[in-house]
Amino acid sequence: MPKTNPGRFFEDFRLGDRLVHATPRTVTTGDAALYTALYGTRFAVQSSDAFARAIGYPKSPLDDLLVFHVVFGKTVPDVSLNAVANLGYAGCRFLAPVYPGDTLSTVSEVIGLKENSNRKTGVVYVRSVGTNQHGDTVLDYVRWVMVRKRDEAAPAPEEHVPALPKALEPDQLGDACPVIDPEAYDTVLAGQRHRLNDYVAGECIDHVDGMTVEEAEHMLATRLYQNTAKVHFNQFTEGQGRFGRRLIYGGHVISLARALSFNGLANAFHIAAINGGRHVAPLFAGNTVFAWSQILAVEELPGRDDVGALRIRTVATKDRPCGDYPLKAGDDYDPAVILDLDYWALIPR
Amino acid sequence: MPKTNPGRFFEDFRLGDRLVHATPRTVTTGDAALYTALYGTRFAVQSSDAFARAIGYPKSPLDDLLVFHVVFGKTVPDVSLNAVANLGYAGCRFLAPVYPGDTLSTVSEVIGLKENSNRKTGVVYVRSVGTNQHGDTVLDYVRWVMVRKRDEAAPAPEEHVPALPKALEPDQLGDACPVIDPEAYDTVLAGQRHRLNDYVAGECIDHVDGMTVEEAEHMLATRLYQNTAKVHFNQFTEGQGRFGRRLIYGGHVISLARALSFNGLANAFHIAAINGGRHVAPLFAGNTVFAWSQILAVEELPGRDDVGALRIRTVATKDRPCGDYPLKAGDDYDPAVILDLDYWALIPR
Amino acid sequence: MPKTNPGRFFEDFRLGDRLVHATPRTVTTGDAALYTALYGTRFAVQSSDAFARAIGYPKSPLDDLLVFHVVFGKTVPDVSLNAVANLGYAGCRFLAPVYPGDTLSTVSEVIGLKENSNRKTGVVYVRSVGTNQHGDTVLDYVRWVMVRKRDEAAPAPEEHVPALPKALEPDQLGDACPVIDPEAYDTVLAGQRHRLNDYVAGECIDHVDGMTVEEAEHMLATRLYQNTAKVHFNQFTEGQGRFGRRLIYGGHVISLARALSFNGLANAFHIAAINGGRHVAPLFAGNTVFAWSQILAVEELPGRDDVGALRIRTVATKDRPCGDYPLKAGDDYDPAVILDLDYWALIPR
Repeated sequence: MPKTNPGRFFEDFRLGDRLVHATPRTVTTGDAALYTALYGTRFAVQSSDAFARAIGYPKSPLDDLLVFHVVFGKTVPDVSLNAVANLGYAGCRFLAPVYPGDTLSTVSEVIGLKENSNRKTGVVYVRSVGTNQHGDTVLDYVRWVMVRKRDEAAPAPEEHVPALPKALEPDQLGDACPVIDPEAYDTVLAGQRHRLNDYVAGECIDHVDGMTVEEAEHMLATRLYQNTAKVHFNQFTEGQGRFGRRLIYGGHVISLARALSFNGLANAFHIAAINGGRHVAPLFAGNTVFAWSQILAVEELPGRDDVGALRIRTVATKDRPCGDYPLKAGDDYDPAVILDLDYWALIPR
Repeated sequence: MPKTNPGRFFEDFRLGDRLVHATPRTVTTGDAALYTALYGTRFAVQSSDAFARAIGYPKSPLDDLLVFHVVFGKTVPDVSLNAVANLGYAGCRFLAPVYPGDTLSTVSEVIGLKENSNRKTGVVYVRSVGTNQHGDTVLDYVRWVMVRKRDEAAPAPEEHVPALPKALEPDQLGDACPVIDPEAYDTVLAGQRHRLNDYVAGECIDHVDGMTVEEAEHMLATRLYQNTAKVHFNQFTEGQGRFGRRLIYGGHVISLARALSFNGLANAFHIAAINGGRHVAPLFAGNTVFAWSQILAVEELPGRDDVGALRIRTVATKDRPCGDYPLKAGDDYDPAVILDLDYWALIPR
Repeated sequence: MPKTNPGRFFEDFRLGDRLVHATPRTVTTGDAALYTALYGTRFAVQSSDAFARAIGYPKSPLDDLLVFHVVFGKTVPDVSLNAVANLGYAGCRFLAPVYPGDTLSTVSEVIGLKENSNRKTGVVYVRSVGTNQHGDTVLDYVRWVMVRKRDEAAPAPEEHVPALPKALEPDQLGDACPVIDPEAYDTVLAGQRHRLNDYVAGECIDHVDGMTVEEAEHMLATRLYQNTAKVHFNQFTEGQGRFGRRLIYGGHVISLARALSFNGLANAFHIAAINGGRHVAPLFAGNTVFAWSQILAVEELPGRDDVGALRIRTVATKDRPCGDYPLKAGDDYDPAVILDLDYWALIPR
């Protein structure tokens, strides 16, 4: 048995397997500073302890996506080291705030398996749960990923495709957001005057700005998350591969799009849930990322009169401004589209 | 009214306008670590809590220019999103030390307006004030910037050019520096033996070293400061623009020059004021920055026998060593010069 | 006497000279976050306060190599500013753990001098000692470096080559590691099940993964350590030099190799000593670093039943996977080899 981790192949997964992932991680203000430097994020609750305290947090929580990336990164050595593609996310809920000094760990369960008809690969569905040092669940999500088989002749497992929610419901949102004082939420300091009911379902917002990505940046980010997927780091090997270059971690694109979305969604300060997401096309260093969003729903949260939720579809493109809200070209995605993300964000009422 | 910020155009400013800028920011040891990684700064007071405590600080203050950049960054969405050029600074005073954990906010007042004769642009003068979470002013400065008009036909505002000081006076300096114990200031640990009276007005110092700048570095820095000026980040758009590439934030150049100036000015540990500064030419990734300084004045501070002040002119160049103190070529600047900065730094007596 | 530091030339060193280096440095969680972002290191003790506490640390110590680089960086302005080559290390011991908030300082003693026969250069041997704010020694090592003479005609000092240990002995190891509870050390969370006695002398481990290095990354790292060696930063000058480009700090390579070695040595959580190391060939931006290790010895530590020590030879290459353990080509190193490092790491029993 080798001392190095070869990663699991498709036939190594069994339905119900419980994978306790390595590398618990204490997240700090150092990580928060790097996150700001990597994406330029400006949401006031995460940027200012004073702002966060004024509305009812004990101090600034860490950015939700930083938490997501750290929890996700731990799953890579056990789930996706031999992955061909990260296919999707569903049912992702943020369940407790994470503060500097908290330690994050991740455990996953294999909840679905489906061999592909080519017998060379299969789809693995895992539910991953991130917890803090007190054992509280901070994040719970499902992802599915296409994984290579070690041996094409290996027998296929019994097929099981889990039922996954298309979207979370409003009554499932908000556990990671303490009750805030919406009067104390200063929209001038937050950068935009619009609250929950200033948005209407169907409206589209071009986030205007573009952000070019460098190799050093996405590698710094992906290492910060201790995500070890080989395709992001190794030009020697990737240079001989399909794209001839390193692939950028899909989560980096999500964070870039979220940071750009501040321009139009400045008060949507907390991602409460990710309903689903697709990395439609790869991003490479040198590309410039743009984004636009459509408001899919404007909802109150049962039992809460401090915040409500916007269901948002954020679409990111590369080298293509989003003034005309690019999405589809016929039945396919517009070739410039790289991300199609459906999530719930909380916003003061 | 759009939900995204189009930025103010020249005709949107009114004399006396008070602009409360968004995005309060808690600055931390994470920001300090990044600042060190970005510039390699080595001033002992900011580098070592033990050194800072020995001379009378409660702990290491954050680098003055990190404070400047964070306070400045907040003004960009309201002042210079449609700027053509950042023209100058004046009357910049550091008024209270900033420590990790402090939260910075910025408010500006429009103190001058002058339409250009081409009617396409105008100059806006703003006084910006940075405060901490206790409401103490930490920084106060004036900058002026050339801003596009939305509509050339828009009427010009009444012209008002504020009287600005050419330089601060010694009795205006030192509020951000607690009284220190100059005996406890260890010049061996600080890296150089020269104190206030070892400098003489007129002397020139070549800072010797050169630092090449990469795209990833200046973008990380500028995002760290939550400075959103588009020209720094978007190669897709800038590639089609005047220079064909991203411009580096002028403040990045100031920080590079200041860090290089350690070699010769190691004990000038605190920037007390910036009298004025000009970004003479743009810097681009791939260029190597050099710097030299001239001591303009050596002054005691009224009522203080712990520290005095050096008035320093620091000149930065690109791709041009500074052994012969390059500055002018005829009436113009030497084409290699990119920064001409006039400031006061405190140094132990 | 100039105000800038010209660096010492060979004839400026005297046997027995004591060099108190400048720039004490408080290391923080911000530095730790950057270290993670730069190398992707995953050792659980350094990654998680909760994990560290469970086994007996008060909290996560900083990575040993971060400590090494910070202590080393301070010696550069006094020892190696005019160095031609960093020739080797010996007798390097980590003697106390370093935690976020500690302040590091370095003092060196000149323990050997030997002029080269060409009379243009000489070898300087220094013993450098890093201490924390309490005066405890945290690191003690010898390095030797080839330094230019200012004047070829300057008389040679009396030659003295110090006797240096080939390797530390097991009874010299472990001072920087508190007694831990090996039962509480969770190998699942640490990422690998192998403890001390699962390794055997002679076995080789390919660390599999490759990491490409960008200019921005190695410069950020080297500045973080306040290492001022000119060859790492100045493309203007280096572009005209021997290699036509910036050289990457050798310590950056050591950290990359150590981080890669997690894959196979995940429980070897603490570097207790470096017996010796050679930077066999330079690394440049764009190269991809691979690594493999051989276990040279498996030792118990006298008086300790919690941890033992692996003596490890880690070899790093550029643009060359290590599945066949490349090392020598005839009498010389394989041209792909860039680092040959011999060290002791502690691992739970």
